[in-house]
Amino acid sequence: MGSRGSPGRRTEEKAGHMLVLLKRGTSELAASDIAARLRMSGLAVHRTDLDGQVRLGAVGDGVTLDWDAVRGWAGVESVAKIPVPFKLVSRTFRPHSTVISVGRCAIGSPQLALMAGPCSVEGEEQVFRIAEAVAKAGATVMRGGAYKPRTSPYSFQGLGEEGLKLLRRAADAHGLAVVSEVMDPAQVPLVARYADILQVGARNMQNFALLREVGHAEKPVLLKRGMAATIEEWLMSAEHVISHGNAQVILCERGIRTFETYTRNTLDLNAIPVVKELSHLPVIVDPSHGTGLRDKVAPMARAAIAAGADGLLIEVHHDPDHALSDGAQSLYPQQYADLVQQIRTIAAVLGREV
Amino acid sequence: MGSRGSPGRRTEEKAGHMLVLLKRGTSELAASDIAARLRMSGLAVHRTDLDGQVRLGAVGDGVTLDWDAVRGWAGVESVAKIPVPFKLVSRTFRPHSTVISVGRCAIGSPQLALMAGPCSVEGEEQVFRIAEAVAKAGATVMRGGAYKPRTSPYSFQGLGEEGLKLLRRAADAHGLAVVSEVMDPAQVPLVARYADILQVGARNMQNFALLREVGHAEKPVLLKRGMAATIEEWLMSAEHVISHGNAQVILCERGIRTFETYTRNTLDLNAIPVVKELSHLPVIVDPSHGTGLRDKVAPMARAAIAAGADGLLIEVHHDPDHALSDGAQSLYPQQYADLVQQIRTIAAVLGREV
Amino acid sequence: MGSRGSPGRRTEEKAGHMLVLLKRGTSELAASDIAARLRMSGLAVHRTDLDGQVRLGAVGDGVTLDWDAVRGWAGVESVAKIPVPFKLVSRTFRPHSTVISVGRCAIGSPQLALMAGPCSVEGEEQVFRIAEAVAKAGATVMRGGAYKPRTSPYSFQGLGEEGLKLLRRAADAHGLAVVSEVMDPAQVPLVARYADILQVGARNMQNFALLREVGHAEKPVLLKRGMAATIEEWLMSAEHVISHGNAQVILCERGIRTFETYTRNTLDLNAIPVVKELSHLPVIVDPSHGTGLRDKVAPMARAAIAAGADGLLIEVHHDPDHALSDGAQSLYPQQYADLVQQIRTIAAVLGREV
Amino acid sequence: MGSRGSPGRRTEEKAGHMLVLLKRGTSELAASDIAARLRMSGLAVHRTDLDGQVRLGAVGDGVTLDWDAVRGWAGVESVAKIPVPFKLVSRTFRPHSTVISVGRCAIGSPQLALMAGPCSVEGEEQVFRIAEAVAKAGATVMRGGAYKPRTSPYSFQGLGEEGLKLLRRAADAHGLAVVSEVMDPAQVPLVARYADILQVGARNMQNFALLREVGHAEKPVLLKRGMAATIEEWLMSAEHVISHGNAQVILCERGIRTFETYTRNTLDLNAIPVVKELSHLPVIVDPSHGTGLRDKVAPMARAAIAAGADGLLIEVHHDPDHALSDGAQSLYPQQYADLVQQIRTIAAVLGREV
Repeated sequence: MGSRGSPGRRTEEKAGHMLVLLKRGTSELAASDIAARLRMSGLAVHRTDLDGQVRLGAVGDGVTLDWDAVRGWAGVESVAKIPVPFKLVSRTFRPHSTVISVGRCAIGSPQLALMAGPCSVEGEEQVFRIAEAVAKAGATVMRGGAYKPRTSPYSFQGLGEEGLKLLRRAADAHGLAVVSEVMDPAQVPLVARYADILQVGARNMQNFALLREVGHAEKPVLLKRGMAATIEEWLMSAEHVISHGNAQVILCERGIRTFETYTRNTLDLNAIPVVKELSHLPVIVDPSHGTGLRDKVAPMARAAIAAGADGLLIEVHHDPDHALSDGAQSLYPQQYADLVQQIRTIAAVLGREV
Repeated sequence: MGSRGSPGRRTEEKAGHMLVLLKRGTSELAASDIAARLRMSGLAVHRTDLDGQVRLGAVGDGVTLDWDAVRGWAGVESVAKIPVPFKLVSRTFRPHSTVISVGRCAIGSPQLALMAGPCSVEGEEQVFRIAEAVAKAGATVMRGGAYKPRTSPYSFQGLGEEGLKLLRRAADAHGLAVVSEVMDPAQVPLVARYADILQVGARNMQNFALLREVGHAEKPVLLKRGMAATIEEWLMSAEHVISHGNAQVILCERGIRTFETYTRNTLDLNAIPVVKELSHLPVIVDPSHGTGLRDKVAPMARAAIAAGADGLLIEVHHDPDHALSDGAQSLYPQQYADLVQQIRTIAAVLGREV
Repeated sequence: MGSRGSPGRRTEEKAGHMLVLLKRGTSELAASDIAARLRMSGLAVHRTDLDGQVRLGAVGDGVTLDWDAVRGWAGVESVAKIPVPFKLVSRTFRPHSTVISVGRCAIGSPQLALMAGPCSVEGEEQVFRIAEAVAKAGATVMRGGAYKPRTSPYSFQGLGEEGLKLLRRAADAHGLAVVSEVMDPAQVPLVARYADILQVGARNMQNFALLREVGHAEKPVLLKRGMAATIEEWLMSAEHVISHGNAQVILCERGIRTFETYTRNTLDLNAIPVVKELSHLPVIVDPSHGTGLRDKVAPMARAAIAAGADGLLIEVHHDPDHALSDGAQSLYPQQYADLVQQIRTIAAVLGREV
Repeated sequence: MGSRGSPGRRTEEKAGHMLVLLKRGTSELAASDIAARLRMSGLAVHRTDLDGQVRLGAVGDGVTLDWDAVRGWAGVESVAKIPVPFKLVSRTFRPHSTVISVGRCAIGSPQLALMAGPCSVEGEEQVFRIAEAVAKAGATVMRGGAYKPRTSPYSFQGLGEEGLKLLRRAADAHGLAVVSEVMDPAQVPLVARYADILQVGARNMQNFALLREVGHAEKPVLLKRGMAATIEEWLMSAEHVISHGNAQVILCERGIRTFETYTRNTLDLNAIPVVKELSHLPVIVDPSHGTGLRDKVAPMARAAIAAGADGLLIEVHHDPDHALSDGAQSLYPQQYADLVQQIRTIAAVLGREV
C-alpha cells in the first residue's frame, strides 16, 4: 500500500510498528514479560493468539528500539515490520477474520448479519411494529436513530434517550440486538446503556474525540465509511478505535460522494473485496443510504452479498410516506422479507447462510 | 438555490419530442402516411410496435407543430410529450426491453450475455487458446482489441486489421460472436467487416463524430460509459446513435472516476437498476476495467448479476503475466470457468439463466 | 428526470422560515414585542438592523403560523419567505456583509485578514520566532494547532493546553490575535480561554455536537469546508452555529477531494464568488492545505485574493524540514513576506488593502 | 511523479525514453548522424536546441539499446533517462518555456494571450459585432465554434464551413487570429484552412485518432483538459500530439467534474502552477466553461492570471439571452473590457503584460 495514493492521502510509514511472534510453547509468564519489556520502551502492545502462537503487535511513534536485540530475546521467534499504515486492523497482524458476537448474531462468521429498522425512532407503535416485521423476516439486529445528524438545524433531531428506551424494549420483545448512533463523546455512556452496538456515522468517521471515546467503550462499534474517505482512511479510523482498546469494530460501506447525482451516493461495492483482503474486520453494507432510492435497495443489497459482504444494514418502515426522515429510501416490511429470501440463495453460492 | 441543480449536467427539455400512439387496427398504409406527415414537418420519426400498436417517436428541435391538430388526425390515439432528455432510449418511448440477437446470444433476454477474451489480440496461438477456453466455460461472445486506445503514445497500439482477422477466425472456430473496439469514424466499415458488435470505448463516449458513424452502421453497438459521465449523459450518447438510425445499442458500465485510488476505477453498480428503470436498452458490466485488480473481478461480476445486469464483459488470458496490456486484471481460464458456475446460481434468483 | 438533481445534496424547503421587516421608526419596545410574539409561536428569532430598519429572521420547523395575520401586525412592513435552506447565513436575511473584529483585524472589511503560523505548536522558540516573522510581514492573526486531528493514531497529536499557552504568549508579544482548532465539544471552554477565534476543522464540519457547542461560545468561529461538502452543506453548517446564537462565523475554503492526486486537495476557488453571492459571511482561503505543496501556495494565495477572498490562512515555519506536521506545505518566513507584497497590489485591483 | 497516482492512473515507465545531450560545438553533420543512428534503432528522435547545445529526445517502447555504448559515441556529452511518462512535453526534455506565435500573439511569452468570442458562430452580424468588441478590449485571438459537440443530438450543431468563413472574415477585419474546434479527424484539413489554432475539446482529449491527425497538422493545437482527466493524462495527450510531429501545443484548463454542482464544473486553478512546473508548454484558462455562470467568470479569470496562467479563453456575446448556446456563461462586451483592465494590473505583479 506504500506506493499507492497521493501525498495527501498517504499515511506515512513509521518505525516502531512491529509484529513480534513468540515461539510456540512459550509460557504465559514469558509472554507477559516480553510484552512488558516492549511496553517499557514506550510502545503500545496488542496481543492476539492464533493456532497456539502468541502474536504481539507493538505500535508507537518515535520509539527507537534495537529490534535486532529483540529478535534475540528468549521466546521470540521473529520480528517483522507491519507494512501498512493500519496495523492492528490489518490481516498481517491478525490473519484470521474477526467474529463479533452480538445477541443471536455472530458478525463476520458464515452467518450473515441482517440489521434492519427505521431511520429514526418516532414512537412506540412504530418501533414495535417494525421490530416484529424485521424479526419475522430474519433480521437479528434492529437499527433506529435516537440522535440524528441533520444537515439542517431545523430538521427533526431525534427523540434522544426516550427513543433509546423504546428501541430497547421493542428489540427485546422480538429477540433482537440494538444498533444506534452516537454523535458526541459525552453521549457514549448513555447510548451504551441501551444499545448493543454503537454506530459512528459517516460524518463522524474522522471525529477523533468520538473515536477515542468509543475506543474505551465495551460495546462493539459499527464504523460507517465517510462520504469522501478512502478505504485506507476508513481503516485508519478503525485503527484509532482499536488502538484505544476496543477491538470489536464492524465496518460499514454506505456510499461515497461522486459526480453522479442520480443516486444519493455511489455505493462502492468494490470496497468489500478490498477490505476483506486488507483487514480481518467484518464489513457490512448499507444500501439504503448508499442509493437513497427505495427500488434500488434490493438490487444493491443482493449485489453486496454477492460481492462478499458480511451483512446488511437496511431501513425498513411500515409507513414510509409518513416517516420523519429518509422515508423515500425505506423498504416496506414485505419488500424486506422478499429480499431476505433472495439473499438466502445468493449467500449459499459463497458458502454462507442467513 | 432552487434552480441550482447542475446546470452543466442537465439537458434542457425541448419542444418537438413527442410520442404518437396510433389506434390499434390502423392500417399499415395509414401508419406510413402519419409518419410521412410528421417527417414533412421536419421531425425525425422512429417507429416501434408493441402489442399490436404502432408507436411513433417524433423528435427534432426547433420544430413548431400544432400538436392539438395532430391529436385529431385519423388513426392517432394519443400524443404525449416524452418527459426525459433522452427520447428514443427511454422506457416511455418503448416500454418493453430491447433484445439484441448476436450469434447464439440474445442480449437483454433472460439469457445472460457472457462476453470474454483478451484485452488485446496478440497473436494466433493466444486468441485460439483463449477462444477455446471461454467458449467451453459458457461464453457466447469473444472480446479482443485490435485498435487500442492508450494513454501513452509509446505503448502497444494493437495489431490492426491483422488482429481482427485472427479474432474472427478464432471466434468462428468456437462458435462465438465477436466484439471489438472502433476508435475512428473512418475505421467503422473495416471493423464492421470482422466484428459482430462495434465497441465504443469509455474515452470516446462523447466522440460525436464516431457516434454518428456507428449510428449509420448495421451492427449492434456496445457503448461504454465514460469515466466522468453521468447516467443521463451516457443515455444521451446512446440517443445519438439511435437518432442516426441504429437502434441496437448495448450499454456497458465499466467504472467511474472517483477520489478512491485503491481500485483503478469505481465500478458503479447502482447504475444497473437505474438504467433498467429509465431505458429499454440492455446493460452489461465490465468488472475487469471497473476494478483493475484480478482478484476483485469475480466478486464484482457476481455482484453485477445480482444487481440485475444483462451480461458481463470480462478479460481472460491464459498467460496474463506476459499480456501486452492489462494483464493484472485478466482472469485465468479456470477462474473464469469457476465464476460462470457461480453466476449460474445467482442468475436463477432473478429468473435468468446462463 | 427533471426533478432529479441530487436528492441527498438538496435540503428541503421548510415552512416557518420567514424574514419579517419592520417599518422604519418602529420603537424599540414595539420591535421587542413583535419578536416576543413570534417566539411564543415556537420560532427562533434572530435580529439584524440595517439602515435604520429592523429585520427579524423567524426560523423553526413544523411551526404553523398565520403569516397573513403577521403582515397585519402594527409595525410590520413585510413578511417574505427566505428562499434558501440556509436562512440566517443568507444575503436575503442580511444583505450587508458581516464584519468580524478580532484584535487589529476586521474580517470581511476591505482590509484583508492575513492569518499565518505553524501547523502545530511545537515549542517556545518555534512559536516566538514564527510570530515575529509573520507579524513583521503583515499578518494580524496567528495560527497554530495545539490539538491536532491526525489520520493515524500514532502521529503527533499536539501539545494541548501547554501549546495554547505558548501560542497566546507569542501572539501577544507581537500584537497578533490567535486562531486554534477545537476538536471536542468538551474542549471548547479551554480553547476559548486562550484563542480569539475557534477553528472547526474540515473533518468536523458536520460534527453537529461541536457546532452546537461553538454556537454557544462567545468567540468567532472559523469553519473550514469539509473535503466532500457542497457549498450548500458548508453554509448549512454555518447555519447550525448561528442558529445556536453565535453569529460570528468566518468560512474557510481549504480544498475539496477530487480524482486529481497531484495536489493533496483541489482548492476550489470557484467557491469564493459563489459564497460571496449567497451569504453575508466573510470567506477566507487556506492554500496550504488546499494544495499540500509549498511552491503552489503563493500562486494559489494570489489567485484567492484575485477571486475576491476576504483573507488567507497560511502555514509558515522557519524550519519546515523539521516540522512535526505538514512541513512540506509550509512557507519559509521570507517567502511569506514576499507573498504579502504581491497580495498588496492584487488587493488594490479589487479596492482592498492589506 | 513515479511514486504518485494510482495503479490505473499511472503510466508505466518504459525503457528507451532518453535525453541525449550533445557536446557544445558538435557539428551539424555529427548531430544529424547521431540522430540517424538512434532512429535506426527504432527510436523516434525529437530535437530541441538550447543555449547552443543540441538536445535529442529519443523515445520508443520495446527498443533495446546499449545506452552505455551511446554514451561513448563521439559528440555525446551525456545520456539520461527522462523520468516522467510524458517525455517531449516535460521540462526535463526542454527546460525553457515554449512560445507559440499566432498573429500578433506570442503564447507563452510575458505577453498574455487573450482569446475571446462567442460560443457558437451564429451569423454575420453577430461575429462582426463581437470581433470588433473583443479586439477593442485587447484580445488578439477570436474564438467561435462552427462544429459543436452537443450532449443532445437534438441541439444546434453549428454552422459548419459557413461558420468558419464568417469567423475568418470577422477576425481578419479586426486583426485577430482564429481558434476553432475540430471534432473529427476528417475535418482537420477543412478547419485548418480557416483557423490559426485547432481546438481539441474536453470530450475529445483522449480521442487518439483526432490527436494523431492534429499531430500531423501545421497549425498550433489548443488542447482542453478532459473533465475527468488527471494532469498527467492531459500531458500524455499533449505528448501524443507532439510525438506525431506537431510541437505547438497550448494547454487549456476548463474545469473538472467533482461532486460540487453549484458551478457547472470546478475550475482547477491548482493545475496552472503544477503544469508550469512539469512542462514547458503554455497553459491558458477557460473560466466560462469552468464555472458556467456569467458573474463568476471575471473573478476566476483574475484568479487564473494571478495563479500564473499564460492567457484566457473567454466567451463574449453582445446578446447572450439569445445565444444559441452557452448564453448564461457569456460576458457582455463591456464586462469583458472591464475585466481586461483588471487583468492588466494583476499581470504586472507577475512581470507580465496584456
